[in-house]
Amino acid sequence: MLTKEIKLYEDRDDVTLTTYITGKKGEVPGRRPAILICPGGAYFSCSDQEAEPVALRFSAMGYQTFVLRYSTYLEGKGGFPDLFGEMPVKESCLHPTPVREVGKAMLIIREYADEWMVDTDRIAVCGFSAGAHNAAMYSVYWHTPLLTDYFQVSEDCLKPAALILGYTLSDYVYMEEREKSPFDQAFFGASNLALLGSRENSEERLKEVSPCRLVSAKNPPTFLWATAQDQMVPVQHSLRMAHALADHRIPFEMHIFEEGPHGLSLADQSSALARSQIFPDAAKWTALAEAWLKKRFSLELPEKTEF
Amino acid sequence: MLTKEIKLYEDRDDVTLTTYITGKKGEVPGRRPAILICPGGAYFSCSDQEAEPVALRFSAMGYQTFVLRYSTYLEGKGGFPDLFGEMPVKESCLHPTPVREVGKAMLIIREYADEWMVDTDRIAVCGFSAGAHNAAMYSVYWHTPLLTDYFQVSEDCLKPAALILGYTLSDYVYMEEREKSPFDQAFFGASNLALLGSRENSEERLKEVSPCRLVSAKNPPTFLWATAQDQMVPVQHSLRMAHALADHRIPFEMHIFEEGPHGLSLADQSSALARSQIFPDAAKWTALAEAWLKKRFSLELPEKTEF
Repeated sequence: MLTKEIKLYEDRDDVTLTTYITGKKGEVPGRRPAILICPGGAYFSCSDQEAEPVALRFSAMGYQTFVLRYSTYLEGKGGFPDLFGEMPVKESCLHPTPVREVGKAMLIIREYADEWMVDTDRIAVCGFSAGAHNAAMYSVYWHTPLLTDYFQVSEDCLKPAALILGYTLSDYVYMEEREKSPFDQAFFGASNLALLGSRENSEERLKEVSPCRLVSAKNPPTFLWATAQDQMVPVQHSLRMAHALADHRIPFEMHIFEEGPHGLSLADQSSALARSQIFPDAAKWTALAEAWLKKRFSLELPEKTEF
Repeated sequence: MLTKEIKLYEDRDDVTLTTYITGKKGEVPGRRPAILICPGGAYFSCSDQEAEPVALRFSAMGYQTFVLRYSTYLEGKGGFPDLFGEMPVKESCLHPTPVREVGKAMLIIREYADEWMVDTDRIAVCGFSAGAHNAAMYSVYWHTPLLTDYFQVSEDCLKPAALILGYTLSDYVYMEEREKSPFDQAFFGASNLALLGSRENSEERLKEVSPCRLVSAKNPPTFLWATAQDQMVPVQHSLRMAHALADHRIPFEMHIFEEGPHGLSLADQSSALARSQIFPDAAKWTALAEAWLKKRFSLELPEKTEF
């Protein structure tokens, strides 16, 4: 396995693409589809729990996998900022930088596709929580000037083949409107400051970062999963995204498990930091996603072996 | 993920231990059990199909994994020798060298256990075909002078916590006795020459390398799987090993799937070289092994996360 950390900016250590390339060239039969993973972390940080364990899970299915650690408020440090303290605006992580970094990652994978044995027509973007939001943002912006003009490339170079969203955010207008506890008020205020530069934003600005309001016929087939008990990012975000996909007749699959809090990642011992993050029912999402992926991401294999 | 290839002999490239270490120190909660994998290849070579894909599968379950490429006749080159041609005896791969190399790998894992975050009380040995034979050989020889005297260590340093055998060989006397096609005659003759130094061996010599005849109370709990249709290594080898384990009241689990040829590895696209190696029923062995492992190999996690 080739594990390599590539910096997206020469002078920064916090924004990286980590490769998990299986097989050796010539040893496996042909190029493999790829999964690009965006961990969550409220745009404050990128969670390790939603990074390598997820990459290894998809890697074990036969895919080439990548983890993108995009720009966040804490610049590579883990955890949360002091939510109730002074939080200066940081230009480096404001929208559209995180979604453009997904595009940059797609271009890097395309550039090294031959060496890494990647089938560039079949690259899925996968994310969790804020990382799912970033992935969903990519699913609605990849073909727009925000990315194509910025990178001066054609749509084809940026096209995702599928999207996988774990307990996603999708509607910042809804997030603003729904009733919140004082902690949630502070938490999402701070997260919005990280992504949008302000705790308070116009409805127009909020719509710009609400992928469920921007779905089009160009959205890729999508797999969504969440838990109905998620107290932090309510399941309505997943439902609204699914509704928009249905409205636009985009093929999608969604699994909402009854039990489990926010941030379960793989929901088993491989990603859990504690037993409170192990939920055997929710953990079934990876097998469901594997089956769903196979509809479009089956490896191209010859009928028989040589001997 | 830390992937590193460690040479077992300074002056040889063909005998190696490859690490697949997940997480970073401090990031994951505590040490993890490990799985040491021996690929098959008739003691001619070590199959890549039964190496990295298997390591990644167990790694995705949350375990630290290792691939041992032990000494074989072709010295690191793939495939088979000319079975009907002249085959000089090679001292370097004769029994007990391969089984001792499993011991050496155990000692290396123990030496670096702190750095690699390995729970040394919970190291399983896993193998396929000839690699399963080598693993099974280890399960009966680890506590004997063949290993303890050779390495000048106590039994405790070499003790395996579990054994996983895919379409194993277990009885070289039976192999000799059963009716074989001319090809099988040549194939197993050559394989025996690789391991034993001769195409024809005394019953006493064959018993020395027949783990099902050497099982004792010191054998570890064992998981076996095979396919009833295996034409190359008949399922009787698995049955005989299971019989011996039952006789000695060693806890074991066995799954024999009706369909599928020899050498399926994971039996899905992640290890298959062709569609003819994909068998959805047989592919269930990894989920069954995962459930079985959890009885003894569950990660030690705190009850709750800190936040």
